[in-house]
Amino acid sequence: MSLIIDCHGHYTTAPKALEDWRNQQIAGIQDPAKMPKAADLKISDDDLRHSIETNQLKLMKERGSDITLFSPRASFMAHHIGDFQVSSTWAAICNELCFRVSKLFPDSFVPVAMLPQSPGVDPATCIPELERSVKEYGAVGINLNPDPSGGHWTSPPLNDRHWYPIYEKMVEHNLPAMIHVSTSCNACFHTTGAHYLNADTTAFMQCLNSDLFKDFPTLKFLIPHGGGAVPYHWGRFRGLAQELKKPLLEEHLLNNIFFDTCVYHQPGIDLLNTVIPVKNVLLPLR
Amino acid sequence: MSLIIDCHGHYTTAPKALEDWRNQQIAGIQDPAKMPKAADLKISDDDLRHSIETNQLKLMKERGSDITLFSPRASFMAHHIGDFQVSSTWAAICNELCFRVSKLFPDSFVPVAMLPQSPGVDPATCIPELERSVKEYGAVGINLNPDPSGGHWTSPPLNDRHWYPIYEKMVEHNLPAMIHVSTSCNACFHTTGAHYLNADTTAFMQCLNSDLFKDFPTLKFLIPHGGGAVPYHWGRFRGLAQELKKPLLEEHLLNNIFFDTCVYHQPGIDLLNTVIPVKNVLLPLR
Repeated sequence: MSLIIDCHGHYTTAPKALEDWRNQQIAGIQDPAKMPKAADLKISDDDLRHSIETNQLKLMKERGSDITLFSPRASFMAHHIGDFQVSSTWAAICNELCFRVSKLFPDSFVPVAMLPQSPGVDPATCIPELERSVKEYGAVGINLNPDPSGGHWTSPPLNDRHWYPIYEKMVEHNLPAMIHVSTSCNACFHTTGAHYLNADTTAFMQCLNSDLFKDFPTLKFLIPHGGGAVPYHWGRFRGLAQELKKPLLEEHLLNNIFFDTCVYHQPGIDLLNTVIPVKNVLLPLR
Repeated sequence: MSLIIDCHGHYTTAPKALEDWRNQQIAGIQDPAKMPKAADLKISDDDLRHSIETNQLKLMKERGSDITLFSPRASFMAHHIGDFQVSSTWAAICNELCFRVSKLFPDSFVPVAMLPQSPGVDPATCIPELERSVKEYGAVGINLNPDPSGGHWTSPPLNDRHWYPIYEKMVEHNLPAMIHVSTSCNACFHTTGAHYLNADTTAFMQCLNSDLFKDFPTLKFLIPHGGGAVPYHWGRFRGLAQELKKPLLEEHLLNNIFFDTCVYHQPGIDLLNTVIPVKNVLLPLR
C-alpha cells in the first residue's frame, strides 16, 4: 500500500474563537487588564470536527491524499508580536489544537509544532514546548522561523550557533524542521508574495554558505514553497558553491535539504522536478 | 541588420585604482583628514581600454553580441556607506568612468547611470546626477536601488510616493530603470545568493500590490536576474493579483515590467521563456 502524505498543511480554518482570543491577547499586551487566560478559549470537539470535515478533509478525499502533516497557521504565528510569554501561551494553544485534530482524525492528521520564538530571545527557550509537542502530542516535525522579527531579519543566520540548541533537540528526536517565516510587519515585504519566498531562498543560501551539515549530518530541513527562487536559479547556486569552495550541491546540501511542491502552476512544477532529485521533493497539496 | 544588446552589463573590471580610492573614501568617513578628493583618482584612457579589451569586449566578440548597456558595478554602489555627500561623489566618479568607456568604444558600450542614493534621504536629491548622466553622458537608463540600506529594507516600497520624483524624471526622459540592489550588510542575506534575488521578487510584488502604473503608464522597470523567484512562481502571483482584485498580470504589469535572462542554467531559461511573453524578456550576457 502506498500513502500520499501532504507535508505542508496548516490549520488555516481554525474556528473563529481562536482569532478572537488572539486579538484579545494582543490587546492585553498594551493593557494587562484585557489579557485573556488560555482557559478562556473554548473550542469544542464538534467545532474542530466541523472546521476540518468541511475543509481540509473534504479536499483530501476529493483529491485522494491520505495524511496531512498539520501545523498551526504560519501567518498567525506572528512571533514579532509581544514577548516570549505572549508567544509561549500562543504556541501552546495552537499546538494543542493541532494535537486535538490529530486525535479526532488519527488516520488523516499528524501534528507538527510551532515554536514560541520571540525576537532577540534565545531559541533554547523554545525547548520545553518542543519537548511537550513531541512527547505528549506526537509531533513529527517543527516549524522553525528564521526571522521571528517578521521582515526585519534581526536574528543571526541559520548557520549561527545561536540556533544550535534547537538543532540538538531535532537530532535527538529525529525531528525535521520546515523553515517557515510568518507574517511580515515590514511594509516592503508582502507576506505571501515576497516574505515567504525570500525566506526560502535566504535559508537555502545560509546553509550553502556554511558547514552546518558537517556539524549536524542528520539534520533535516524542509524548504517550503518549492524552495523559493532556488530551483529556478540552481545554476547560480551551483556557481556560488564552487566560488565558496564548497562541495557540489548534491553532496553539500541534498542529504539535509528537501523541497515541497507548493508551486501553483505546471511550468514551475516541471522545473522543480527537472532540477531537483526526486528524493528531495516532498509532496504537499497546498 | 539585427543587433544583440546586453541590457545588464556592469563595470566589474574597473582598474584597481577605483577600489583603492573608494577604500580611502570609506576611511575618510571616520577620519576626515583621510578623505580623498575626486581629482585624486587617476585612471588613464589606456587603463580603461585595457580593462575593457581584455574582459567585456573580448567576451562580447567571442559570443557575438554587439552592444552592452553599461553601468557601475552594482555591488560597489553600496549606498549604505556614508551619507548623501559620500554617495554623491562616488556616483559621479563611477558614472563618469562608464561614460568614458562609452566614448572609447562608442560602437559597443552605452552608459546606464547609478544614483547617489543614501538611506533615509529623499530620492529627489538624486535628480542632479540623473540629469547630468542623461544630458552630458548620454545615459539610456538608471539603476534604482529599492533598498539603499543594504538589506535592512528601511525605505518605503516602490509604490510609495517617496519614489515619485525619480519616476517623474524617468518619464520625462523616457528612461527605464533596472531595479537593482547593492551589497548586503545584513548577515542574513548573502549579496548575490539571496539579497539580489529577494529584491527582484520583492520589487515585483510591490508593483503588483499597487496602482503605480496607472499613475505612470509609460514607466518601465527592468527586473534583473530573471525576475528573482517571479517566473517560477507565476501561478502564485496570478492568484495574488486575483485575490487583490487587480487585473490579469499581463494587463496589470507587463506593459511596464521586463525581465532579463540572467539565469545560469538551461531549465531556468526554458521556464522563463515558457512563462513570460517574449516581448517582456530582454537579453543580458551576464
